[in-house]
Amino acid sequence: MSDKSGGPVAAEQIADLAAASRILAAQGVVDGFGHISMRHPAAPERYLMARSIAPALVTPEDIIEYSLDSNPVNANGRGSFLERFIHGEIYKARADIQSIVHSHSPSVVPFGLVGVPMQAMFHNAAFLAAGAPVWDIRKDFGETNMLVSDPVRGKSLAQMLGDKPVVLMRGHGDVTVGPTVKMAVFRAYYTDVDAKLQSQAIALGGDVNYLTPGEGTKADAINFAVIDRIWNLWKMRVAPGLAK
Amino acid sequence: MSDKSGGPVAAEQIADLAAASRILAAQGVVDGFGHISMRHPAAPERYLMARSIAPALVTPEDIIEYSLDSNPVNANGRGSFLERFIHGEIYKARADIQSIVHSHSPSVVPFGLVGVPMQAMFHNAAFLAAGAPVWDIRKDFGETNMLVSDPVRGKSLAQMLGDKPVVLMRGHGDVTVGPTVKMAVFRAYYTDVDAKLQSQAIALGGDVNYLTPGEGTKADAINFAVIDRIWNLWKMRVAPGLAK
Amino acid sequence: MSDKSGGPVAAEQIADLAAASRILAAQGVVDGFGHISMRHPAAPERYLMARSIAPALVTPEDIIEYSLDSNPVNANGRGSFLERFIHGEIYKARADIQSIVHSHSPSVVPFGLVGVPMQAMFHNAAFLAAGAPVWDIRKDFGETNMLVSDPVRGKSLAQMLGDKPVVLMRGHGDVTVGPTVKMAVFRAYYTDVDAKLQSQAIALGGDVNYLTPGEGTKADAINFAVIDRIWNLWKMRVAPGLAK
Amino acid sequence: MSDKSGGPVAAEQIADLAAASRILAAQGVVDGFGHISMRHPAAPERYLMARSIAPALVTPEDIIEYSLDSNPVNANGRGSFLERFIHGEIYKARADIQSIVHSHSPSVVPFGLVGVPMQAMFHNAAFLAAGAPVWDIRKDFGETNMLVSDPVRGKSLAQMLGDKPVVLMRGHGDVTVGPTVKMAVFRAYYTDVDAKLQSQAIALGGDVNYLTPGEGTKADAINFAVIDRIWNLWKMRVAPGLAK
Repeated sequence: MSDKSGGPVAAEQIADLAAASRILAAQGVVDGFGHISMRHPAAPERYLMARSIAPALVTPEDIIEYSLDSNPVNANGRGSFLERFIHGEIYKARADIQSIVHSHSPSVVPFGLVGVPMQAMFHNAAFLAAGAPVWDIRKDFGETNMLVSDPVRGKSLAQMLGDKPVVLMRGHGDVTVGPTVKMAVFRAYYTDVDAKLQSQAIALGGDVNYLTPGEGTKADAINFAVIDRIWNLWKMRVAPGLAK
Repeated sequence: MSDKSGGPVAAEQIADLAAASRILAAQGVVDGFGHISMRHPAAPERYLMARSIAPALVTPEDIIEYSLDSNPVNANGRGSFLERFIHGEIYKARADIQSIVHSHSPSVVPFGLVGVPMQAMFHNAAFLAAGAPVWDIRKDFGETNMLVSDPVRGKSLAQMLGDKPVVLMRGHGDVTVGPTVKMAVFRAYYTDVDAKLQSQAIALGGDVNYLTPGEGTKADAINFAVIDRIWNLWKMRVAPGLAK
Repeated sequence: MSDKSGGPVAAEQIADLAAASRILAAQGVVDGFGHISMRHPAAPERYLMARSIAPALVTPEDIIEYSLDSNPVNANGRGSFLERFIHGEIYKARADIQSIVHSHSPSVVPFGLVGVPMQAMFHNAAFLAAGAPVWDIRKDFGETNMLVSDPVRGKSLAQMLGDKPVVLMRGHGDVTVGPTVKMAVFRAYYTDVDAKLQSQAIALGGDVNYLTPGEGTKADAINFAVIDRIWNLWKMRVAPGLAK
Repeated sequence: MSDKSGGPVAAEQIADLAAASRILAAQGVVDGFGHISMRHPAAPERYLMARSIAPALVTPEDIIEYSLDSNPVNANGRGSFLERFIHGEIYKARADIQSIVHSHSPSVVPFGLVGVPMQAMFHNAAFLAAGAPVWDIRKDFGETNMLVSDPVRGKSLAQMLGDKPVVLMRGHGDVTVGPTVKMAVFRAYYTDVDAKLQSQAIALGGDVNYLTPGEGTKADAINFAVIDRIWNLWKMRVAPGLAK
C-alpha cells in the first residue's frame, strides 16, 4: 500500500476532530495522554489523527494523515503517537467504524483488572449492553511495556474488540469506536460515567438490574438521534478562546 | 382539548425557568440531557418547557408552551424533547405541583437498579423520608428504548410517582416535582446529594439512622422557608455573562 | 442581659470573618447553607455573624452583632439565621473558644448516622483524635424539624460537644469550634477531608491504624504553627473580585 | 560541610521548580501544604526549595538554597519548611535522584493506615510495581507530632524508602522521588490517581490483576519517553497569569 494522501478533507471536519480531542480533555476522559482519530472521509485506507501532543491542546494544524499501517503520510517532522497502531489495525478490521478513541479513562481502568464485566447502567450507556471485552496483553505477548506499539499488538486488540463498541485493556485503559467522531466521543464519555455508576451500584450490595441486551439495542438507537444536543454543548465549551 | 395558548407569562417567570435549567447544569444534576418545566401560571392545562437543547444553554427565547397532552402550542419550528410526556402526564395527575425536573442525576441512577430504597440522610433532603418509588419501565412495557416517549408511558410513570416528591426510573434517571420551580430544582439537587451520602453511609457498614417519616415532614417544612437563600446564590452564578 | 453593643470591631477582623464565610463555600464545606461566627473581641458576651444569606456571598456589611442569647443587637431589618442558637449556647459553655462553624459538610453527614466514630487519619485532622461525639436531637427532643432553632436545643448540643473541637449532628451536619476564626475554618475543612479518607480506608478493609490520642495532641499543636500558610492561600482566592 | 552556595542556577530551571510547585496544587496533589525540591544541578551537596509558603503561590523569588543538612544558604529572613529534612536526608541517601515531592495526596493517605500495599494499576503508575513501603514514625520514635522535623527522622524515612520511587508515611502522606523535577511530579500525580483506581478495584471485589514487577519496569521506561507531553500541558496551565 502506497503512503500517498487520500486527498484534502473539509476544514470543518478537521476542526471537529481537533475539537473532539479537546472535548475528551475537558470532560475528564483523558488527561495529558490519549487520542482520537477519524477515517479519511474519501479514502477508507487512510485515517487522520493529531501529532503527539496533549489532547487538550490539539488544533487543526496538528492533524496528520496516516495509512492503515499507521505510517504518516504528511508528518513533516511532526511526531506520531506510539500507539497509533490501535487505530490503524481497528480500521482494517472494522469497515463499519469511522472514528476511534483511546483513553485511560480513570473509572474504567479498574474494570480491566477484575473479573467484573462492565454492564449498561442507563440508556446513555446502552451500547455497553452488547458487552465490553477485556484484552489482556499478557496473554499473547507475555510481560510487556503494556503499549500497543506495533501492528501485531494492534491486530490482537482489534480481534478482542470484535464487533463491539468498546474494548477494555488490562492495566492500561480502553478503546471506544463509532460510526462518527461524535459517537466515538459520546461512547468514551459515557463509558467513563457508566463505570462510576456500576461501581457505586455494586457497593450498594445485592443484585443489579442492568439493562438487558434488548433494552440496550433499542436505547442506543435513541442516542444516535439526540447526540447533537450534547455534542453542541461540548463543542461550544472548547471553542478557541474558551478551552483551558 | 384545543391547543391554543394559555396567554402571556411574566418575563420574570420565564427567565426563572430558563435560569433553573442552567442551574441544574451548573450544579451537575444534568449534563447535556434533562429538562425542567413549569405549569402555566394562569392556565393549569398548559405547561412551559425549553425546546430540545442542552440545559446549560437555555434562554427565555427557547421556552415553548405545551398542552397537557404535550402538544406544542407555539413551536414555530423549534424541536421538542422526546420525553415531554413525563411532564404532561404528571401535571394531569398532580394538581398540587407546578414544576417538574427530569434528570439522569449520576449518583441517583444506581438506586434505580438495586433493591436499596433511597432514604433521607439529612434535613435538606428531608422530602425523601416520604419514600422514592422506583418505576421499572420493563414491568408494563417489556423491553423498550427506556424512554417515556408517549403518553401511556408517562401515565404509568405518574402512577408510580403517586403523591411523592420523587420517582426513580430504572436504568434511566429520576423525576422530582414541586409546588414551585425553585422547589423542584431544590429537590433535584438534594436528591443527588442524598444519593452520594447514602452510598457512603452504607459502605461504612452497620445500621443507618435515617430520618424518620415524622422528622422528614417537619424538616421539609423548613426547606420551604429557607429556599431563597440557596436559590439566589444559584441564580447569581448562572446570570447571563457568568454561565459557562 | 442587656442587648447593647459590645463596641466597634476592627474592620480587618470583620473582613476576615466575612472572608472565612466565603472560604467555607469556596472549599466545598458549605453550599448555600451554613454559617461561621466569632466572639466579640472586646465583649465576650457578644458574638458576630452574617445575616441570613448564602455563605459565598457574605461581605462585611452583612455582619450582625448578637447577645449570647442570640438576640441581634443591630439587625436594622436584616434577617437572622434560624440556627444562631448553636453559636450563642456554645459561646456560653466554652469560654476557651472564639469562633464556631456550622456546616452540612457532605462527607461528614454519614458519620452522624452510623455507629462508626470519626478518627484522625492524618496530622492536619489530628484534632479529631480527641473524639467527635454525635448529637442525636431525637434523644432529648423526639421527632423534630432537626434544627437547633431555640436556646434549649443549643444548650443540649453544647453539652454533647463538651470540651471537644467537633460535634456531629445526626441527620444534619456538624459544628467545629476553635480559639480563632482561622482555626475554626481549618477544622471544618479538615473534618470534611478526614471523613473522605476514613470512608476510603474502611472500604479498603481490615484494621486502620488511626492516629493515637497522644499523636493527635502533639500533631495538632503543629497545625496552630502553620495555619497561616493555608489561610493566606484561601483568603487570596476569595478576595473581592476573585470570589465566585 | 560549609554552608556556602553551590553557585548560580539557570533561571529556566528555577522557573520550572516554581512551576512544579504550582502544578502540584493545580492537579490537587497538594492543598496549602506540601513541597517539592531539586538537587542543585552543579553542586550535589546542595538542594533548592521554596520558602515556607503554600505550593500554589510559589514563584522563582521564593526559592532558597539548602545544604544537605537542610540549613539554608541564602534565606535572607525567609522562613523554611519544618519538614525540609525529608529532602536533605533523601538526597544524602540517594545519589541517583534529583528531585523530591512531599505531599498529603488525599487518596494515598488511607494506604498508609491499612495493611493493603499499593500496587500499579496501569502503565502511567507502573513505577508502583516496584513497591511502595510504608514508614510508621511510631516504630522508631513513639508517639510524635507526626512530622519529619529533624535529620534523624529524615534518615529513618530515607532508609524505609530504600531504592524505591515512593514511600508512604502513616497518618501523614507520601514522598515521591525521581531523576528529574518532571518525573518527581509525574510520580506524585500518578500515585494519587493510582490510589483512587486501586480503591475502586478493591471495592468491586475479587482478585485484581495488578501490573507485574516485570510489566512495571518495562512500562515505566515509556513514561520517561512521553513525560513532556503532560508536563507541557501542566506547565501551560500554571503559567503566570493563568494560575489560580
